Amino acid sequence: MINQLVKNIKKLDAPIVVGLDPMLSYVPEHIQKAAFDEYGETLEGAAEAIWQYNKGIIDSTYDLIPAVKPQIAMYEQFGVPGLAAFQKTCEYAKSKGLVIIGDIKRGDIGSTSKAYAVGHLGQVQIGDKKFSGFCEDFVTVNPYLGSDGVRPFMEVCKEEKKGIFVLVKTSNPSSGEFQDQEINGRPLYELVAEKVASWGEEVMGDDYSYVGAVVGATYPKMGEILRKVMPKSYILVPGYGAQGGQAKDLAPFFNEDGLGAIVNSSRGIICAYQQEKYSSFGAENYADASRQAVLDMKEDLKQAFVR
Amino acid sequence: MINQLVKNIKKLDAPIVVGLDPMLSYVPEHIQKAAFDEYGETLEGAAEAIWQYNKGIIDSTYDLIPAVKPQIAMYEQFGVPGLAAFQKTCEYAKSKGLVIIGDIKRGDIGSTSKAYAVGHLGQVQIGDKKFSGFCEDFVTVNPYLGSDGVRPFMEVCKEEKKGIFVLVKTSNPSSGEFQDQEINGRPLYELVAEKVASWGEEVMGDDYSYVGAVVGATYPKMGEILRKVMPKSYILVPGYGAQGGQAKDLAPFFNEDGLGAIVNSSRGIICAYQQEKYSSFGAENYADASRQAVLDMKEDLKQAFVR
Repeated sequence: MINQLVKNIKKLDAPIVVGLDPMLSYVPEHIQKAAFDEYGETLEGAAEAIWQYNKGIIDSTYDLIPAVKPQIAMYEQFGVPGLAAFQKTCEYAKSKGLVIIGDIKRGDIGSTSKAYAVGHLGQVQIGDKKFSGFCEDFVTVNPYLGSDGVRPFMEVCKEEKKGIFVLVKTSNPSSGEFQDQEINGRPLYELVAEKVASWGEEVMGDDYSYVGAVVGATYPKMGEILRKVMPKSYILVPGYGAQGGQAKDLAPFFNEDGLGAIVNSSRGIICAYQQEKYSSFGAENYADASRQAVLDMKEDLKQAFVR
Repeated sequence: MINQLVKNIKKLDAPIVVGLDPMLSYVPEHIQKAAFDEYGETLEGAAEAIWQYNKGIIDSTYDLIPAVKPQIAMYEQFGVPGLAAFQKTCEYAKSKGLVIIGDIKRGDIGSTSKAYAVGHLGQVQIGDKKFSGFCEDFVTVNPYLGSDGVRPFMEVCKEEKKGIFVLVKTSNPSSGEFQDQEINGRPLYELVAEKVASWGEEVMGDDYSYVGAVVGATYPKMGEILRKVMPKSYILVPGYGAQGGQAKDLAPFFNEDGLGAIVNSSRGIICAYQQEKYSSFGAENYADASRQAVLDMKEDLKQAFVR
């Protein structure tokens, strides 16, 4: 799947992933109204609203982007109906040829990580048959439990040719509280990155590994070091746009070949219509605003390569 | 809710939580058959089987134990139907007066942690109404993202009088890979524990804080230190039984008042009938075997207090 992701990125010349992280407040009135008319102001109604909203964005952007990254928390907050909308969104995006990066940040002791890996990337055995509970191509994984929390994901990735992005240095303001702590003169995130590199060597695709890393756009200097520590790992870069990361800060995340990183934007794309810049589209045409925002992001990212 | 948990523990004289972590292979034939006859060998059939299995265990143990700890991964592996079984299990256990500790190990950047907190411990706003997606009383939280990944959970806990257990030192063999790394001569897990203690001061119940910690039974010496670092935090102790932790190792996790820790057992209780010791119960009476295993665990734990 890493090969497919790289292929998509090259073909579209767009190292971009759209974060499908819908809040109900992002969903235009007319979509909310239709959903609530059908299902009432309920968890089911909210789930229908975010699904329809996502569908519009996928329909208007799928030909421009290699991948989408639904953040499962935004669905989980609506309980079981929300998670059904998550699954529907992943299936639909997949039917449009998009690579699905499930932002689930799971990680547990071995047998439990196995269950997450099977549920999101693999297949669960029931009697003589196998079923996919969810259907992502990649998921994000939290490394706090060490190798035996990560390896079960790697095993499923190997079988299914799928991949993971391990949290190395996250984009949030307090990420340094533990991640930056110095161990023998080097920060914890570098140790995690070294592990990512060595895990990655075990499950290589053509040019890049099945094991990637998450490094926030908000920490470009660390990105520069981490790029070198994990030369064969794709870096998933959150924090561009709404969280403060700028295009000029992104260069260090890429390799010389112009590959090696994929930049996420969530709010900046999915509720573009709420920004002054795109307000002329109007709420009815929110999906067209998202398409324009993708085109603008693609243009903006080119600055990352003006060295 | 921490007050309720302490009250339940005192009343039953049982610092025990039963981990409802069902694998399909744990579920007796007759339950699997009934579920598959009704729903086919499908995700729905598997979800029905684990729900019926859980119900039997809850019915036979609820008067002996203060709390249950469903591990969400075991449900998530069966997709949306599995998560519906998780929710049904939590609701049913709650109706029996049990405290629900959702072992979800979530943690993300602020706005995303907020969504998890709202979904599992709080209520989500939809139009004029509020809904609970899931209904745990406590959840486990991964600290790798630092304070702004944890605070949104604390805020919801404050509003709803609920609680969290933050992963400090996990029970698995590779937990030391990152958690034991020394920072200025002290391991990372101690730093996390200090944070837990200071977060905990902000949201105190009567005697213990809303913010507890997870420390594995498999690391009793670390438990001794951590008990002192976080005097007001309840410690959720996994790893007893199947993972190798023994009763005599548990003393350091408790305070002088005999409180301060709650010990989890999953496999040791829920599939007791598969152990030689309880084999005379037979698969039909698996729930009675679980009841006996709880009684035996209660007895066994008394050794922890023979100092």
